Amino acid sequence: MLFFGGDYNPEQWPERVWDEDVALMRQAGVTIATVGVFAWSHLEPSEGRFEFGWLDRVLDKLHEGGIKVALATPTASPPPWFTLAYPSAMPVNADGVRLTHGSRDTYCVSAPAYRTAAMTIALKIASRYAHHPALAMWHVHNEYGTDCRCDLTAAAFRTWLQKKHGDLDALNSAWTTAFWSQRYSDWAQIMPPRATQYLPNPAQVLDFRRFLSDELLAAYIEQRDLLRGHNPDIPVTTNFVQGGWVSVDHARWASEVDIVAVDHYPSSSGIGAEEETAFAGDLARGWGGGSWLLMETAPNLIYTRDRMHAKEPGRLTRHSLGYVARGSAGAMYFQWRQPRGGAEMFHSALVPHAGPDSPVFREAVGLGRTLKNLAPRLASAPPPDSQIAITWDAASWWALQGGGLPASDLDYLGAVRQVHRALFRSSLQADFVFPGVSVSSFGDYRVLVVPHLYLVSDPVAAAVREFVAGGGHLVVGYLSGIALPDGRVRLGGYPGAFREVLGVRVVEWQPVAPGESFVLDDGSHASRWRERVETAGASTIARYADGVLAGSPAVTRRRFGAGVAWYVSTGLSDEGWQRLLGVVAAEAGVEPVVAGLPDSVEAVRRGDLLFLFNHGESVVTVGSTAVPGGGVRVVSGLSASSSTSSAFGCPAPITPPGTPSDKPTAKSASPG
Amino acid sequence: MLFFGGDYNPEQWPERVWDEDVALMRQAGVTIATVGVFAWSHLEPSEGRFEFGWLDRVLDKLHEGGIKVALATPTASPPPWFTLAYPSAMPVNADGVRLTHGSRDTYCVSAPAYRTAAMTIALKIASRYAHHPALAMWHVHNEYGTDCRCDLTAAAFRTWLQKKHGDLDALNSAWTTAFWSQRYSDWAQIMPPRATQYLPNPAQVLDFRRFLSDELLAAYIEQRDLLRGHNPDIPVTTNFVQGGWVSVDHARWASEVDIVAVDHYPSSSGIGAEEETAFAGDLARGWGGGSWLLMETAPNLIYTRDRMHAKEPGRLTRHSLGYVARGSAGAMYFQWRQPRGGAEMFHSALVPHAGPDSPVFREAVGLGRTLKNLAPRLASAPPPDSQIAITWDAASWWALQGGGLPASDLDYLGAVRQVHRALFRSSLQADFVFPGVSVSSFGDYRVLVVPHLYLVSDPVAAAVREFVAGGGHLVVGYLSGIALPDGRVRLGGYPGAFREVLGVRVVEWQPVAPGESFVLDDGSHASRWRERVETAGASTIARYADGVLAGSPAVTRRRFGAGVAWYVSTGLSDEGWQRLLGVVAAEAGVEPVVAGLPDSVEAVRRGDLLFLFNHGESVVTVGSTAVPGGGVRVVSGLSASSSTSSAFGCPAPITPPGTPSDKPTAKSASPG
Amino acid sequence: MLFFGGDYNPEQWPERVWDEDVALMRQAGVTIATVGVFAWSHLEPSEGRFEFGWLDRVLDKLHEGGIKVALATPTASPPPWFTLAYPSAMPVNADGVRLTHGSRDTYCVSAPAYRTAAMTIALKIASRYAHHPALAMWHVHNEYGTDCRCDLTAAAFRTWLQKKHGDLDALNSAWTTAFWSQRYSDWAQIMPPRATQYLPNPAQVLDFRRFLSDELLAAYIEQRDLLRGHNPDIPVTTNFVQGGWVSVDHARWASEVDIVAVDHYPSSSGIGAEEETAFAGDLARGWGGGSWLLMETAPNLIYTRDRMHAKEPGRLTRHSLGYVARGSAGAMYFQWRQPRGGAEMFHSALVPHAGPDSPVFREAVGLGRTLKNLAPRLASAPPPDSQIAITWDAASWWALQGGGLPASDLDYLGAVRQVHRALFRSSLQADFVFPGVSVSSFGDYRVLVVPHLYLVSDPVAAAVREFVAGGGHLVVGYLSGIALPDGRVRLGGYPGAFREVLGVRVVEWQPVAPGESFVLDDGSHASRWRERVETAGASTIARYADGVLAGSPAVTRRRFGAGVAWYVSTGLSDEGWQRLLGVVAAEAGVEPVVAGLPDSVEAVRRGDLLFLFNHGESVVTVGSTAVPGGGVRVVSGLSASSSTSSAFGCPAPITPPGTPSDKPTAKSASPG
Repeated sequence: MLFFGGDYNPEQWPERVWDEDVALMRQAGVTIATVGVFAWSHLEPSEGRFEFGWLDRVLDKLHEGGIKVALATPTASPPPWFTLAYPSAMPVNADGVRLTHGSRDTYCVSAPAYRTAAMTIALKIASRYAHHPALAMWHVHNEYGTDCRCDLTAAAFRTWLQKKHGDLDALNSAWTTAFWSQRYSDWAQIMPPRATQYLPNPAQVLDFRRFLSDELLAAYIEQRDLLRGHNPDIPVTTNFVQGGWVSVDHARWASEVDIVAVDHYPSSSGIGAEEETAFAGDLARGWGGGSWLLMETAPNLIYTRDRMHAKEPGRLTRHSLGYVARGSAGAMYFQWRQPRGGAEMFHSALVPHAGPDSPVFREAVGLGRTLKNLAPRLASAPPPDSQIAITWDAASWWALQGGGLPASDLDYLGAVRQVHRALFRSSLQADFVFPGVSVSSFGDYRVLVVPHLYLVSDPVAAAVREFVAGGGHLVVGYLSGIALPDGRVRLGGYPGAFREVLGVRVVEWQPVAPGESFVLDDGSHASRWRERVETAGASTIARYADGVLAGSPAVTRRRFGAGVAWYVSTGLSDEGWQRLLGVVAAEAGVEPVVAGLPDSVEAVRRGDLLFLFNHGESVVTVGSTAVPGGGVRVVSGLSASSSTSSAFGCPAPITPPGTPSDKPTAKSASPG
Repeated sequence: MLFFGGDYNPEQWPERVWDEDVALMRQAGVTIATVGVFAWSHLEPSEGRFEFGWLDRVLDKLHEGGIKVALATPTASPPPWFTLAYPSAMPVNADGVRLTHGSRDTYCVSAPAYRTAAMTIALKIASRYAHHPALAMWHVHNEYGTDCRCDLTAAAFRTWLQKKHGDLDALNSAWTTAFWSQRYSDWAQIMPPRATQYLPNPAQVLDFRRFLSDELLAAYIEQRDLLRGHNPDIPVTTNFVQGGWVSVDHARWASEVDIVAVDHYPSSSGIGAEEETAFAGDLARGWGGGSWLLMETAPNLIYTRDRMHAKEPGRLTRHSLGYVARGSAGAMYFQWRQPRGGAEMFHSALVPHAGPDSPVFREAVGLGRTLKNLAPRLASAPPPDSQIAITWDAASWWALQGGGLPASDLDYLGAVRQVHRALFRSSLQADFVFPGVSVSSFGDYRVLVVPHLYLVSDPVAAAVREFVAGGGHLVVGYLSGIALPDGRVRLGGYPGAFREVLGVRVVEWQPVAPGESFVLDDGSHASRWRERVETAGASTIARYADGVLAGSPAVTRRRFGAGVAWYVSTGLSDEGWQRLLGVVAAEAGVEPVVAGLPDSVEAVRRGDLLFLFNHGESVVTVGSTAVPGGGVRVVSGLSASSSTSSAFGCPAPITPPGTPSDKPTAKSASPG
Repeated sequence: MLFFGGDYNPEQWPERVWDEDVALMRQAGVTIATVGVFAWSHLEPSEGRFEFGWLDRVLDKLHEGGIKVALATPTASPPPWFTLAYPSAMPVNADGVRLTHGSRDTYCVSAPAYRTAAMTIALKIASRYAHHPALAMWHVHNEYGTDCRCDLTAAAFRTWLQKKHGDLDALNSAWTTAFWSQRYSDWAQIMPPRATQYLPNPAQVLDFRRFLSDELLAAYIEQRDLLRGHNPDIPVTTNFVQGGWVSVDHARWASEVDIVAVDHYPSSSGIGAEEETAFAGDLARGWGGGSWLLMETAPNLIYTRDRMHAKEPGRLTRHSLGYVARGSAGAMYFQWRQPRGGAEMFHSALVPHAGPDSPVFREAVGLGRTLKNLAPRLASAPPPDSQIAITWDAASWWALQGGGLPASDLDYLGAVRQVHRALFRSSLQADFVFPGVSVSSFGDYRVLVVPHLYLVSDPVAAAVREFVAGGGHLVVGYLSGIALPDGRVRLGGYPGAFREVLGVRVVEWQPVAPGESFVLDDGSHASRWRERVETAGASTIARYADGVLAGSPAVTRRRFGAGVAWYVSTGLSDEGWQRLLGVVAAEAGVEPVVAGLPDSVEAVRRGDLLFLFNHGESVVTVGSTAVPGGGVRVVSGLSASSSTSSAFGCPAPITPPGTPSDKPTAKSASPG
């Protein structure tokens, strides 16, 4: 079975709607519903008073309909009564403003009152439903990621720091508190980053984000262990939310969940949404060690910075199968039925305000059928296989978000996405590795790409060196290997951690003004960054072509042991990266998933299934398979060009306006 | 008599300046001065100590000069002593920051201490001046519109909610508190919108704005009744201030004032200022049921977002007569004499820093003469007559200002102004109606235009249906009829309230990125918004021409009963709206004020007077009347082209630089 | 000896690095190190416990190396223990947020606890090191300029106001508190500007900034007197930081320091950096009455708004000699060695992360040699001599930063820099004068340029009048002479203070929208501002060419007594100002430093040395001296064209990449 379904919030609707919900879920082939995520105020309407009858009925109805349940602990959003009873458990921001309820996620995770209340409701749920026949999964909390700077947080932060640093001398050294007279002489002097006169200490900020990640993780583990205690057979997870503001190191959390569950909302309305989908799928698969689950995405919208773009017909299917192809155990959505009110009443749903007689529900019905057909073939399929790895490191991201950096717009996520995009466009399948969390050999790969890996430990530096010595192909981008994990810069010339293996020494950074671009002597275009590079063993592959660096090395290459180490000292364009990584992959003997694909087509192999996504508007033919514009084809066999392969899944092709297919047979009355 | 004058603040000047003020007022033909608006700290310099002597002398001097007084209660700005004595009556913002004095309007309207202090000073003024011979009007407070989120406000908000919703179940339902676990189990848990973790509940925000409007209104009524008690013959009003931040529903307030008084400051330096003047005049006339008074505008500046633009010669006259033509009982300004200091020392005045020997004072003198001549003819003139109505609804505006909407830049005011502008450019006179306040028949009109009327009650929906059935012509724009007045979305397809009368069903919204525009198959240009429209009885008038909606309906038209109902599902350009509304008006048999006017000319009929405004630079001839560039002509008779009509008022033509006319005979010394 | 060196923070490094530091300083010719600026937490790690041993060793090592010390009192950044012990001494912002440590400069200067702690550590330092043989200068604090709005500040503000205004009537009048009902009836009612409902009182804001300047000055003087008491032979100073947010009137402070010390960081990456250098040098020389010291600049970066631009080769030298040529007693930098961590770990240093084997250190070595050669010749050289003065007034800057002004982007600094730049480009040497601080005759000059001198006292107005009457050439720009020093506008027509001497009367301002430009009838381009000018004795030199002011005077000129007074009512372009000031200088008989210089070349004369800076890329020849692109030549003699002059100093020419000169002989190991 593939998971297909999403967040289901029956508490928003009168009970008479629930039967229609189950009927429509069956019509759409929904296999699982996530229930209870925001139900705390309905389950415990006042402190100590519990109302479980309605939830009993919901679970029974779903079970009767053959629909499994991912049951949530509702601890992400304490009810209003909690605020009144425990004001000191409300979070406080860096300016000292204590927040109140009225949105969601309003609590301080370090507050004992919150932790106690959360464990109380979790225990009630666990003891009542741990053996419910519909139960397929525990969904702890929701999108961990809140932030607080209150005094309770301060105390917890100090405890964490004591454990990490041991003594104040070590902390003072790691944080370079000698700068600006910040030396601590007592643990009680240490605060979370709060409003202060000017730039904060970046090491303090970095450790605070690590602390927050660990503090939230402890709250998760507490609940997980309680749930496991009630029924060890039910997998436990929590849905990971991604974003620059989230202080959660998911690579570190991944080992504590039974399946990595990811919420993913692309933020670009064009082809970028497909590139983001591929990126998210590959990253999540890395966290999950091969398997994972798309827990949430929006059925029919793409949030850009300032508006909700509707997806074109077929795009829901294309995105959903994109996640599945890259290893997801299914495709789930936020949410089942669009609410009539509340802060997200216009967030997309499988059953929109217009009801089931709508394009999105019709496409969902077709998708449900496709997933049902695919499920048996994917049950035993291994995830996509890759000989290329890209490094990902949450702490490096955090470190590059601060002030006092050489440029105010350093973009860790952008740099990683850019190299992934370059590989994606060449149909080169990539994995992600997490050197900030687990220092292991990179020997499973032929190519290792290292973008903006700002923080690097000595063991990681040694492992990278060994990878190249043993025959690997390494590509290091600028702003990598600059600092120790505590944030202190490695001295003697950049990039300290990789200077030897790369055979270069950088003596000056030259950030470039926004909008300014330039060329290298090999014709590559670049922007954002330049460096004064001295070679010390490396050969120069491309040079800066003008300005004060004219003639200086820009891209270098060094044979080191049995391998090759490349350094890219500048912000190559997308085309520049695609060309460079194409050369590296070829040298390393790495083949594309499908060679010679048209630009708009994405190919992903999962086991013996080849997924072909046509993100363009016109039909394209890959081998013997015609893929309609906006459509997907799944073929079995080793190669798309093999004449023995045949079409397997045929997701909903684009339907012209006015001739909808898969129209639900029963029109549904408007609930409410 | 037409009111001509403005805010007069003698307390800012030494007493010797007062005599010059009266002399200059007489020279300019000023008929009324608004006195005392910000005089609290001069009338009650410390708590319980009152100083009225200076005000006695001011009123006597004005009376002797034949100038009437609009006497203010000064309660908009408590003096500094009030802050020290009653710190808990200072307002608190959403972040919990308690404000202090040092500007204006710094008080919490729900604080008993404030209300008591305000009534105390109002009583002193009422009892002293209610029968002063100069008194023509009471001007309560100033520009009601402050905001507070303190605990006193919270308590008042809860009382208001209890009265509105009755019980918590009703509130929980209306606010959809099931979303994000916000269900309230005790009234004490409810807060004003305050700093919280993420998006607030939009229904809570909407009700809070309604509460603020009612809370401020109660404070007004308290004073009004006190003043009436002292002299029932003196009309009482308060000046309405407009702006997206103002939580006052003026349509609801209008029935509580004896004359609707409006402050209006255009915010566009080009022709937009004239369009805003027309819009404000028509809107205010709607509030006032035909009559109103321009209480404040800036004599010689237009505030754009970031600077004060001087008005071109003649523009003070043109704007002022524009208000009068649209029904104002006069033209009043902020302020009489430009202050030497204070936060608005560069705000424009009739007597500027340069003194009366200045262009603005000279133009004022001419304008005073014009108004004096016009007064007798306008005394009995009915306001402009219209067969077209546009809906205006403050609550819909507020609802579209929140977060979580399909786009972050939904623009209620812009949408309403756009349809008004389209009519203005076709010389089609429009009224405003207020379906959120009074649900009555729309049968007085031939055409009803409904832009962005997001919130619609069932009775209003029924009245609109009846209007069309009875032969009316309805034009509904997108984002209308979406939700109930409490903010809950109407289900089954947009626009829920108007689906049947329009004969359409919208199943998907497609917000369009800023800067992107597109065409319909009738050549119209559009931007901002698209919808997937299914017709159910309507005919398609224009279709989307490209993209995923190519061939889908964009503009529809349905015969319904004896009338016609149009739906516009996209953001038409100004030209598109002008063309469409021209067609509708023609079908409905509505004639322009003057047909075939050049682009730069505005025509307004008030009674038997036809006002012709030339906003261009060159002379134009309308019928037999030549209107100079930048000038105004007022002609009597039924038609501008009638040879029997004759020029009546001749406001100051543009005077070339260096040859000022209407120069005051007595040069005034600089006061101070 | 010229000062050459910079901030040295040995507490950031293990003691073994110190010896290398001294060796490298000697190699670079460093003469002075600023020590201890941020050392409080190392000198007093907990309250009352002092650790001076390390500092003893540092000073001894420097002394042994022949390097002098500017010893700082570290009072700009109290240690974390101070926060815990004295929470009420932490600063509070206008929103009431109390800041905490974790950055720098976090204290309230009005808090007795802070003042006591600061004097205690200053006393310890003074008594221990006042007679240390390395001591050359006391460096009090660092970049005074913090802001606080707490209750302790409020009390101090009131005391200052009582002293300034005497009684409340005077304050009420000066602040125009009659506006918006702000009249004070008790001193206790007065607050610092804090969060309030709308625009604050501009006079209150202005007085608060003056108070802050005086309050900080009192804290400085307290320390200065203590240090002088221990050794009257050691000069005392503090480093001035510049910026629109700094509430310090440096012209007023200058008389309290033994040498004016200035921190200067250009903020433009192009030629603007050189223009800023010249501007800063001339301004600092004005403050210092001819002499001053560049205390800090960044060796190898230019901070623009959002990034750190590396300087091109030779630019460190060019900028450094630029300051010296304009009177600086040397060139000092922040900082000696780039730190491994802390908020400014990427701020530039003489010894960067890469170590001494780096372009910046190599250029520093060459510069050290150059300065050593120049020192004897400059010892007796008078500063640059000028016959042109520009007014500078911090209070006018502050007054034009507020709200409620005719435009939200009035730019005092930009206006002053523009006239300075126009003179700079014509090789016309300018001084600065400070009419807001010392009202004296301007008789030492031939030309006085008055840009945006918004606040003018009557004595200053009289002095300006006398200057012209006595034969001076005056150029007044718009927004000058508008108000009294308390901020009250001068009535009767702008510019009140200068109306008579200029022979004009301005009756209307016309701020111009951003991006809009226009021409005058003499072909000059202008933008930003227009005025309706009436002449009253002046001749019109240029008129507005179009718009409503077509034909009106834009630039006027009046003979007054033996002199000439010009008025510029509009925002001339750079070229317009350069042309106009060229005409004025010629009329006044003022000669350029070197006539006929190419655009890229700057010439400064200090004593008998002529500094020639080539800011372009190609060699240029001035007289008989060839100046290479990016280079500097210093020639002696009266004229560059004199055949008897000879090259004297030859700073490091630009070295092509890969062929570094001045390479340090000993490669340094990486410390840390």
